[in-house]
Amino acid sequence: MNKKITSLLSGLIFAALSVNTAHAQSDNFSAQQLTQVSEIKQQALDSDLAWDLVESLTTEVGPRMPGTPGDKAAVAWAVAKFKHLGFDKVWTEPATFPKWIRYSESAAIISPAPQPMHITALGNSISTPKNGIEAQVIEFDSLAELENAPNNAAQGKIVFINYKMDRHRDGNGYGPAVQARRSGAVVAAQKGAVGYVMRSVSTAYHRFAHTGGSHYKEGVTKIVSSAISNADADQLHRLVALGKPVTININVQAKSMGEGTSYNVIGEMTGTEFPDQYVLIGGHLDSWDLGTGALDDGAGVAITMAAAKIATSKGKPKRSIRVVLFAAEEFGLWGSKAYVKANQQTISNIVAAAESDFGADKIWAFDSNVHASALPLVSEIAAMMASLGVEHLAKNNARGGPDLIPFRQFNIPAFGLSQDGTDYFDYHHTADDTLDKIDPKKLRQNVASYAVFAYMAANAKTRILGK
Amino acid sequence: MNKKITSLLSGLIFAALSVNTAHAQSDNFSAQQLTQVSEIKQQALDSDLAWDLVESLTTEVGPRMPGTPGDKAAVAWAVAKFKHLGFDKVWTEPATFPKWIRYSESAAIISPAPQPMHITALGNSISTPKNGIEAQVIEFDSLAELENAPNNAAQGKIVFINYKMDRHRDGNGYGPAVQARRSGAVVAAQKGAVGYVMRSVSTAYHRFAHTGGSHYKEGVTKIVSSAISNADADQLHRLVALGKPVTININVQAKSMGEGTSYNVIGEMTGTEFPDQYVLIGGHLDSWDLGTGALDDGAGVAITMAAAKIATSKGKPKRSIRVVLFAAEEFGLWGSKAYVKANQQTISNIVAAAESDFGADKIWAFDSNVHASALPLVSEIAAMMASLGVEHLAKNNARGGPDLIPFRQFNIPAFGLSQDGTDYFDYHHTADDTLDKIDPKKLRQNVASYAVFAYMAANAKTRILGK
Repeated sequence: MNKKITSLLSGLIFAALSVNTAHAQSDNFSAQQLTQVSEIKQQALDSDLAWDLVESLTTEVGPRMPGTPGDKAAVAWAVAKFKHLGFDKVWTEPATFPKWIRYSESAAIISPAPQPMHITALGNSISTPKNGIEAQVIEFDSLAELENAPNNAAQGKIVFINYKMDRHRDGNGYGPAVQARRSGAVVAAQKGAVGYVMRSVSTAYHRFAHTGGSHYKEGVTKIVSSAISNADADQLHRLVALGKPVTININVQAKSMGEGTSYNVIGEMTGTEFPDQYVLIGGHLDSWDLGTGALDDGAGVAITMAAAKIATSKGKPKRSIRVVLFAAEEFGLWGSKAYVKANQQTISNIVAAAESDFGADKIWAFDSNVHASALPLVSEIAAMMASLGVEHLAKNNARGGPDLIPFRQFNIPAFGLSQDGTDYFDYHHTADDTLDKIDPKKLRQNVASYAVFAYMAANAKTRILGK
Repeated sequence: MNKKITSLLSGLIFAALSVNTAHAQSDNFSAQQLTQVSEIKQQALDSDLAWDLVESLTTEVGPRMPGTPGDKAAVAWAVAKFKHLGFDKVWTEPATFPKWIRYSESAAIISPAPQPMHITALGNSISTPKNGIEAQVIEFDSLAELENAPNNAAQGKIVFINYKMDRHRDGNGYGPAVQARRSGAVVAAQKGAVGYVMRSVSTAYHRFAHTGGSHYKEGVTKIVSSAISNADADQLHRLVALGKPVTININVQAKSMGEGTSYNVIGEMTGTEFPDQYVLIGGHLDSWDLGTGALDDGAGVAITMAAAKIATSKGKPKRSIRVVLFAAEEFGLWGSKAYVKANQQTISNIVAAAESDFGADKIWAFDSNVHASALPLVSEIAAMMASLGVEHLAKNNARGGPDLIPFRQFNIPAFGLSQDGTDYFDYHHTADDTLDKIDPKKLRQNVASYAVFAYMAANAKTRILGK
């Protein structure tokens, strides 16, 4: 035998032994369990269950804005799917929210160069008069610039905030941009504006307006709140820059409808040893109305349902694995708030929680937010994800997804399985958020990561504690 | 001096001499002229004139569908720009066409899974009743499959043709796809359909419906003619595949308005020796109404205007260079047909013709369609374009752009400066055809190619003859 080959083989044998040794030496898992995790991981990588789920949800239900018939259909869909997948317990819990409906929206540059614009009403916006509102545009670079403008700076005008968000893998361009969506109409009205339009919170290269939540403030006049596509914002900016007055018309027909009700849909694979303790994974079932909510958050729904199913394919877990599909996230985390309220007494039973709500691109990082005693176990989970291309950040300050914000007060053990969000804000809250934007292969990598995570957190010898 | 460096320098000197020798040896150009071509080429590569033109056209005019106020504004814009650029002669020639106006369009899946679809009326479509037309969908893979279906196969239904076009650099996927756009509504009506919708003629990954010309046939019932985005076609196909009846509603409000009139706008840099002989370059000034016609064909307008300006920056050419901005191309080459009719007696004065109407991506190929006697000159032009990354195909069977089709009967010397069309049908005839899709650097490469072409064809010792 050639010396090089001998040496190579020795290396391989050593590596193989090392893996076995590592498995055998685990303080948290038996060798059999570690084998099972590997098998589950591979099973997830070979499975199109999540794809089938998100295809079904986006096709057979479609858009599902809180309080709409689509939302109701989604709840029925989720209950039926959980049951069909053999979850041990399936139930719903109500959540109320301020209901808002979009009827229509359009906009145009009236002068100096008449042309239509692609616009969307922001959530919660009031209607304009039937023929829209027509006024001269005053442009600001950012919400801060508007805030710093003199009172009456925008008197009788339509304020246009032209801030462009940055593209980043971790989506950190969203924070600086989103404040203008949430509060722009309030500040514009305070400066005397009769309407508000912003460059969408968007990294897109395509002509879609991005919707999203916005709010009004008591005592401040409500004015129409809207966003135009990047291409239209470029156009409006160029026309304003020519120096002549630019007049636009915005026509939004929408309505606040009082209190609406929807339902968190919950499916549980019940634990054999500690059924009350549970791993919480999930996404949100609702979506905005413009697209079919494939990336936001059909993917998260499908990934976590499939992961729980596959993670329990070798037998029931020690602790329960609970998939929570939150209601009315887009309108302000209403499902999550309701869950925390309804389950307050048992929130401390959560041994690990993670939400998938950042699209369907590859998970590139894993991290925890747990008591120091759990860090060796976290490292074991991370090691098992390494072959999926997931990096262990080991900062132990993970957040765990928007619907887990209301849980933070309870210091539950939270986890972040961070998806690559480079392209996420190309599609976020647009009509372009459709099934074709999901890569089935990347979806499988997500399911594998969640399945590994759920299995290991549910079956570890000792439970994970929060900080 | 190091031997390697000496050898390198000798090589460089030899190469430099070779270039000079090649220049000096030209049968068609003086050394001074060849120097000028090189300078013009560089000038074009350094110039943002074309960008400024297309930015101005798409921003200050915007959409310019034949017969609309935008079209009228575009004609005024073009006349003013030609004059401002110092063209020697600027004039317009009328062209008439069947005018058609789009008011609104919308569509939705009604059952089994209600959701909106992104749709566009195809040019020339009739209106539906005010509340749209609602019927069950019958799907066909292609126009051929529909043609081969039994009579009454689509009785009372809406025909959906689900053919997906292929992506190719030379756009050759368009031909097989476009027939369903032009004639789909006729064939569907012949099979008893009450409405027609097709998957857009599109390679796009985004949720835009692509409009484009369609026609009716005398004696065949007119039914609504429309196209949905790729994402919506995927969705509709999936629902049909589930096996239950799928009902949709299509609502198009549009109108044929009788005969409209627009104008070819023509700017000429008049030749000093043979003013009647001319190089014809151009694009079409009109666009569809959904986008701002940046790629189709603001780019062609800007490229050829800028090229003529830059090609004559060293002095007036021997033969004239005429930029023709054709009217109403999108409705069926009406401006081009009018040009040929009005200028029939002098068409034979054209020494070279090329139209830029395939977007704004890099020109990758050059070819001619000329008398054999002109081939050495064609090779000289091609050699001068080589440094721009343009390949000489040397098949001598170029077509020269859609507006040159009506010229073919006269066997004019036609040229193809072929743009890379890989992405062209992502944007073609959509709302997404906006200025941000143009790369200023690639635009300059186009201008340089056209400037080299126009200069050399206009200034060659002998004129180019057609086949």
